[in-house]
Amino acid sequence: MKIITISREFASGGRELGKRLADAMGIPCYDHEIIELVAKQQGLDKNYVEYLSEQDLHSFYAKTIAHRFLIPHPMGQQPAKVITAEHEIMKKLAMQGDCVIIGRCADVILREMHPFDIFVYADEPSKLERCKAREQGDRPLSDKEIRKRIKQIDKECIAYRKLFTETDWADMASYHLCVNTSGREIKTLVPAIAAYTAAWFQKGGA
Amino acid sequence: MKIITISREFASGGRELGKRLADAMGIPCYDHEIIELVAKQQGLDKNYVEYLSEQDLHSFYAKTIAHRFLIPHPMGQQPAKVITAEHEIMKKLAMQGDCVIIGRCADVILREMHPFDIFVYADEPSKLERCKAREQGDRPLSDKEIRKRIKQIDKECIAYRKLFTETDWADMASYHLCVNTSGREIKTLVPAIAAYTAAWFQKGGA
Repeated sequence: MKIITISREFASGGRELGKRLADAMGIPCYDHEIIELVAKQQGLDKNYVEYLSEQDLHSFYAKTIAHRFLIPHPMGQQPAKVITAEHEIMKKLAMQGDCVIIGRCADVILREMHPFDIFVYADEPSKLERCKAREQGDRPLSDKEIRKRIKQIDKECIAYRKLFTETDWADMASYHLCVNTSGREIKTLVPAIAAYTAAWFQKGGA
Repeated sequence: MKIITISREFASGGRELGKRLADAMGIPCYDHEIIELVAKQQGLDKNYVEYLSEQDLHSFYAKTIAHRFLIPHPMGQQPAKVITAEHEIMKKLAMQGDCVIIGRCADVILREMHPFDIFVYADEPSKLERCKAREQGDRPLSDKEIRKRIKQIDKECIAYRKLFTETDWADMASYHLCVNTSGREIKTLVPAIAAYTAAWFQKGGA
């Protein structure tokens, strides 16, 4: 079984890398699909699950865990249910066969399945450029606002990871391959990453 | 110009990876050759240069820099001369054409030549195993002694690096690709790393 997990700094191109890697390997890539399945299972709106899962949840849920006997979570048990459902669905998807899973601490959640764990990162100018290139809307964010957003989202990833593991989010020891995408087009790097992934799996699980 | 630098944790297989990568790319690999050239240039014994360069130098020279007006280096100016000669020789070798350079903070020293910087690391059991496999002599070191040696040498690398740069030795941001060799044979990983290196250089320097 070849399970590949992608963790990444916000705007480093990790999502694109994961999708292209899955395409190159001819296997499915799970990203927003997980949210959709959770929403369906829990009878919740997709956007609401995404909101719970990616925004508020990270910091609020951490507080809930820390103070669970003192301060009830403002949204009751729903964040915990959504996290649990996410993990169950990730495990089910992974059990179905080879795949790439993006984000959501899949490297930790699926540890027992011996995934190949990739971390994608980039320097600040590259992340800024990537954000600007994909930004839409009438009022584009300033560089300062984008930088703040990048830091905030990465901070949430760190907090979210701390719920499940002692291993550090930005520590290379937590991963099998760490890819710096600064100044490079993701698509040019993917064939070699696919080759590396195949070589890594030749030995079997870690 | 394709300059590839290899930084690595002790016993992670970085040296083997660098040599095999150079072979795969059909370019020279510089490692002990640098010591030999320095010894020749400075009229010193090769083993003495290696001793200065890899053992005592790291910690003693750091102290010398910190206290250079207070405590003279026990070996006078020789460590500084050896370091300077090493850097000059590394630059000369890199100017001659594509190559792989192992260790010696080549990523920092050759920054202006836009090298592709690889960091090689592994978990402790893998490093222990690698040390034992290559160990020679009548009295093999105990696991505890090997672990201590691994930590000591890595500590010296960190100290040595601090002489030249603010960037951290074990921080992925300092490198373009970080390769975890735990539980894997180096030779199985090298073709894909060579492919990645080639893809990275297609864009030109960073």
